[in-house]
Amino acid sequence: MRTQVGIVGAGPAGLMLSHLLHLRGVESVVIDLQTRESIEQTIKAGILEQGTVDLMRRTGVGDRLMRDGFVHHGINLAFSGGLHRINMYELTGGRSVTVYAQHEVLIDLIARRLADGGDVRFGVSDTQVEDVESEQPRIRFTHEGRQETLECDFVIGADGSRTSTRFLIPEGAVRTDFFRQYPFAWFGILAEAPPSSDELIYAHSERGFVLVSTRSPSVQRLYFQCDPDTVVDDWSDDRIWEEFQARLAPSGAQLTTGRIFKKDVLQFRSFVCEPMQYGRLFLAGDAAHTVPPTGAKGLNLAMADVHVLDRALGAYYDTKDTGLLESYTRTALQRVWRAQWFSFWMTSMLHRFSDASDFDLRRQIAELELVTTSPTAAKTLADNYTGLPLT
Amino acid sequence: MRTQVGIVGAGPAGLMLSHLLHLRGVESVVIDLQTRESIEQTIKAGILEQGTVDLMRRTGVGDRLMRDGFVHHGINLAFSGGLHRINMYELTGGRSVTVYAQHEVLIDLIARRLADGGDVRFGVSDTQVEDVESEQPRIRFTHEGRQETLECDFVIGADGSRTSTRFLIPEGAVRTDFFRQYPFAWFGILAEAPPSSDELIYAHSERGFVLVSTRSPSVQRLYFQCDPDTVVDDWSDDRIWEEFQARLAPSGAQLTTGRIFKKDVLQFRSFVCEPMQYGRLFLAGDAAHTVPPTGAKGLNLAMADVHVLDRALGAYYDTKDTGLLESYTRTALQRVWRAQWFSFWMTSMLHRFSDASDFDLRRQIAELELVTTSPTAAKTLADNYTGLPLT
Repeated sequence: MRTQVGIVGAGPAGLMLSHLLHLRGVESVVIDLQTRESIEQTIKAGILEQGTVDLMRRTGVGDRLMRDGFVHHGINLAFSGGLHRINMYELTGGRSVTVYAQHEVLIDLIARRLADGGDVRFGVSDTQVEDVESEQPRIRFTHEGRQETLECDFVIGADGSRTSTRFLIPEGAVRTDFFRQYPFAWFGILAEAPPSSDELIYAHSERGFVLVSTRSPSVQRLYFQCDPDTVVDDWSDDRIWEEFQARLAPSGAQLTTGRIFKKDVLQFRSFVCEPMQYGRLFLAGDAAHTVPPTGAKGLNLAMADVHVLDRALGAYYDTKDTGLLESYTRTALQRVWRAQWFSFWMTSMLHRFSDASDFDLRRQIAELELVTTSPTAAKTLADNYTGLPLT
Repeated sequence: MRTQVGIVGAGPAGLMLSHLLHLRGVESVVIDLQTRESIEQTIKAGILEQGTVDLMRRTGVGDRLMRDGFVHHGINLAFSGGLHRINMYELTGGRSVTVYAQHEVLIDLIARRLADGGDVRFGVSDTQVEDVESEQPRIRFTHEGRQETLECDFVIGADGSRTSTRFLIPEGAVRTDFFRQYPFAWFGILAEAPPSSDELIYAHSERGFVLVSTRSPSVQRLYFQCDPDTVVDDWSDDRIWEEFQARLAPSGAQLTTGRIFKKDVLQFRSFVCEPMQYGRLFLAGDAAHTVPPTGAKGLNLAMADVHVLDRALGAYYDTKDTGLLESYTRTALQRVWRAQWFSFWMTSMLHRFSDASDFDLRRQIAELELVTTSPTAAKTLADNYTGLPLT
C-alpha cells in the first residue's frame, strides 16, 4: 500500500490535515487505534478560536458548526465579589470564539473524509513507524486482522498526548522535551443541565479556581481546581455542587445544577517538544505539545499546526520546494510558545497556589482589576483568547 | 510646641508633603533620625515617573531636576540574544521617566523647605508618637539634647521601611500586613564610569537577571540577581564585571566599566499594610508598603501617597470635610496594589527562579517576545512603567 502522506492519529490534527491535503489533491491515509464510535463519542475540548472556525468554514466542513455552535463575544471574570465581562468582540475588532464540542468537529471531519473517498482506518493495532530518516518512511499496522505496510513520502505524528511517534526523534542529540507540572489539577464534571451563563465564567476565589463552561444547550462542563491526588469517588454530586456554589456565590453567579454523568480529574501540565520535525516525520497537535486547559488552546494549536503543514506539503508537491517544510518547527513553535505563555498567564492569574500568601491573592486581584478596567490589558487577553490569525 | 501636621520622616514622602501643605498654608514640622548630611548623601532610587516629575515642576521644586535629570523615552529588554527597545514615549502618547537620583530630590526639597521657613529637625532621637486615636495626637522626641513635645492635629508616619509608626495600628483587629519574600536578591554596585547605554537595560539570561541603570553621567548603578545569602566580600571587582559581561554578552550590550565604590545586596520583598490610616495617624511611602525594585516604583508611590494626603488635609482645613481623609486608604491602596502587580510582573518575567525548568525560561522568552512585538502588550508595560496619572 502506498500513499503520499501517512497520518498516525484521527484526532483534530490528523483528520483536518487529511481533509486539507485532499482539497489540494494530495493523497493521505489516516490510521487510529480507537474505533470510530469511541472517537465520535468522547467529550473533550469545546472552544474554537476564530481562526479554527474560519478554517473549517472556508474548507467546507463548517455547516453544522455554523448551525449548532454558539458564538461567544465575551467571557466573564469573577473575582472579589463581582462578575466582570471582557468584551472580546469589541476589543479585537470583531473576533470571537465558538462553543462547539471537539467530538462534533471530529464527526464532521470523518463524515467529510469518507464522503470524499478518504482512507481512514479505525481500530488499528501494532502501529510501527519506520525509516523516517529516509525518503521512504513506512507505517506498519494491523487492521481488521491483516498486517499492512503503508509506504509514504511523509509521516505525520498526530497521535495525541500519549504519542509514540514523538519518541522516534532521538532524545538529547535531536529532541528536547520542555516540561512543567503544576501543583494542582481540575475536577471536571459533565452535567445534564441548561447553561448557567450565556458566556463562560472564569472565577478566582480563596477556595481556588472555577470554570463554568458548556458543551451544548443540554450538556454543561464545569471544573474546579483541586489537589492532583483528588479521588473522584470521594466527591458525591451534592458535595460537588456545594463546592461550586461556595466558590461562585461571592460573585453573584447562579448555577443551574443537574444530573452529573461524568466526573474526572485532569492533571495540569505544560509540554513542548523541540523540534517538531525529524527527517520525514512531522509532529502535530498534542503529540508535540500540551497546554493546561485554562487558555482553551489545545485543539486550536492542533488546527494551527496542520494549517502550516498543509501549506508546506502543498509547496513541496507543487514545486519540490522544501523551504516551508524546513521552517515548520520554527513557524509552529512560535504560536505554541505564545499559547504556553497565555495558558500559564490565565492559570497563574486565576488559580490558588499551595504556597500562596494573602499577598499573592491580593496581587492576583490587582491583576484581574487591571485586566477588567484597562482596555489595553483587556485587549491582550482578548487577542490571545480569540487566537492569533493563522499563519 | 504645636503644629497642624506632624511628620515623622524626612524622606521623599515626608518632605514633599510638608512642601505641598506649605503651599496651601498648612503648617507642619518634619523630624528625622538621620542627619541632613546622611540624608543628602545616601544614594537610593533614581527613576522618576512622569507624574512625580510633573508634581515637582508644578510646585516649584523641579529646576535642578529639569536641568540635571535625564529624560528617558524608552527602556531596553535584553533576551534571547537580542536587545529590544520599548518606545514608552510613543506608546503612552508622550509620557516618559526621568533619571534623577533620590538624594538629589531630597536636597531640592530640604533646600526649599528651609528657604520657605519650614521646620525640619534632623538627627532627632527617642521619637514617641502618642494618642493617635484622639483628636490631639502628640510626637515626643529629643533634638539637640532637648526633649520636645509636638502637639498636632494629624501625625504622618513617613518613616520608611524600618517604620515604628506602622506598629501604632493594632495588628489583627485593625492592621493586616501582606508580605511576600522572593527567593533571590540583587547584588548592586555603584561605579565611577560613563553610562553603558542611553537607556536602561533589563536583561533576561540563563544566569539570571541584570539591570543596567544609571544615577548620573559619571555614576552608574548596576545590579545582578543573586542568592539572598550572597556575601559582598566574596565578590572582587573583576568577578563582578565578569558576571555582568557573561549575562549581557549574548544580547550584544556593551558595558563601560570603572571603579566600584559601593557594593550591596538588596533583599527582595513585597509588603503592604492595610489600612494606611488609624485615627489621626496616616502612613505614607515605605512605612506602609515596599515593592521589589524591578518596577522602579518605591519613590513614586511615596509621592503619589502624599499627593492624595495633601488634597485630603487641604479639604479638611478648608471646609472640615473629612471625606477624602476617610477614603485615603482606599485611594492610595489602589495604586499600591497595581504597583505590586507591576513589580511582580517585571520580576517574574525577567528573573530566574531557583526551581525554574527550561520550560519556564522558554515561557519567559515567549512573554518577552509578546511584550516587544505586540504594541498592546508593550503599552501595558509602558503605561505602568511611566506611571498612572496622579489622582
